[in-house]
Amino acid sequence: MSRVELWFEFASTYSYPAVMRAEEAARAAGASLAWRAFLLGPIFRAQGWNDSPFNLYPVKGRYMWRDLERICEELKLPFRRPSVFPRNGLVAARVACWHADAPWLPGFVRGVYRANFAEDRDIASRDVVGDVLAEAGADPRAALAAAEAPRAKERLRAQTERATALGIFGAPSFVVGEELFWGNDRLEQALAFARRAPAP
Amino acid sequence: MSRVELWFEFASTYSYPAVMRAEEAARAAGASLAWRAFLLGPIFRAQGWNDSPFNLYPVKGRYMWRDLERICEELKLPFRRPSVFPRNGLVAARVACWHADAPWLPGFVRGVYRANFAEDRDIASRDVVGDVLAEAGADPRAALAAAEAPRAKERLRAQTERATALGIFGAPSFVVGEELFWGNDRLEQALAFARRAPAP
Repeated sequence: MSRVELWFEFASTYSYPAVMRAEEAARAAGASLAWRAFLLGPIFRAQGWNDSPFNLYPVKGRYMWRDLERICEELKLPFRRPSVFPRNGLVAARVACWHADAPWLPGFVRGVYRANFAEDRDIASRDVVGDVLAEAGADPRAALAAAEAPRAKERLRAQTERATALGIFGAPSFVVGEELFWGNDRLEQALAFARRAPAP
Repeated sequence: MSRVELWFEFASTYSYPAVMRAEEAARAAGASLAWRAFLLGPIFRAQGWNDSPFNLYPVKGRYMWRDLERICEELKLPFRRPSVFPRNGLVAARVACWHADAPWLPGFVRGVYRANFAEDRDIASRDVVGDVLAEAGADPRAALAAAEAPRAKERLRAQTERATALGIFGAPSFVVGEELFWGNDRLEQALAFARRAPAP
């Protein structure tokens, strides 16, 4: 079974549709999916950006919101433009990175995106992250405590450095072997590549 | 018959696959295609960029060249990375803008992209543009002379301003009524939208 790594950042708009459909699409393609939380902030700062490019370039931002709305409509995904953008996904990313192999992880990741992009909830808040953890079947207090320990913080830092080393510059990104694919609209191509690639 | 406008810039890498497949795809979708040459230079400069973002952000540039290579492979389009990027498409754009309704126009546009992205020829050169015009069945001297008259230069300027007014920030872009779609990978979505939209 070939493996597709899904690299996501909780503030990333196009990661929302990608994350919501990735598990089912990977299953249909016979590929295994590995969840890779990381932070775009340090990567953007290295390019000289101190904010989302969708805020720095408003013309592109306007387009993105309409494009995302159309995509969600087509996928029948609920969508409400967040009143704050980008939201700080640090706590949620630490949880997703530390508990990457937990059985509740995919449900948690989707729940955080739903909270941000369908329910306009503040995913920076530990309370909101805790609610989503509980909905996903995790123990919120234990999961948060583990994810905020020093070694968990360090793991997310290392994973973000790994993203940089892989040439990742945006989210969502998909990695299959040595190949990088960027954008929700590349999921199918990444899965097709995984089908042709030899299993690791 | 609904109309899809294809906005392209000759230096734009992702415009190459879009332009090569647009006419056939539009025909299959029962939509009419309107060719809209414009210049990205003034639009990029307004965003503070004095070069292609693929040069300004090398990590993104590296990804783009590999991505384009994969796309061309899948479409069975010949591709050779141009030794100069971006190439100056001003003369070719003036030709394409002034002669937008000529029967040889689609063949000319595809020929210029092929010269740039498959044959590594210098499309900034009048000789190369003249060769492509001849191959497309136009009279090179007459077509170039008309395209370099003041009113032809003015038309390209006005068309680039129109692109800005439409919210266009990159190429290729597709416009269907009030809707904007950006990127080669949005051609199908634009055509699907055109099918649902009332004819103008």
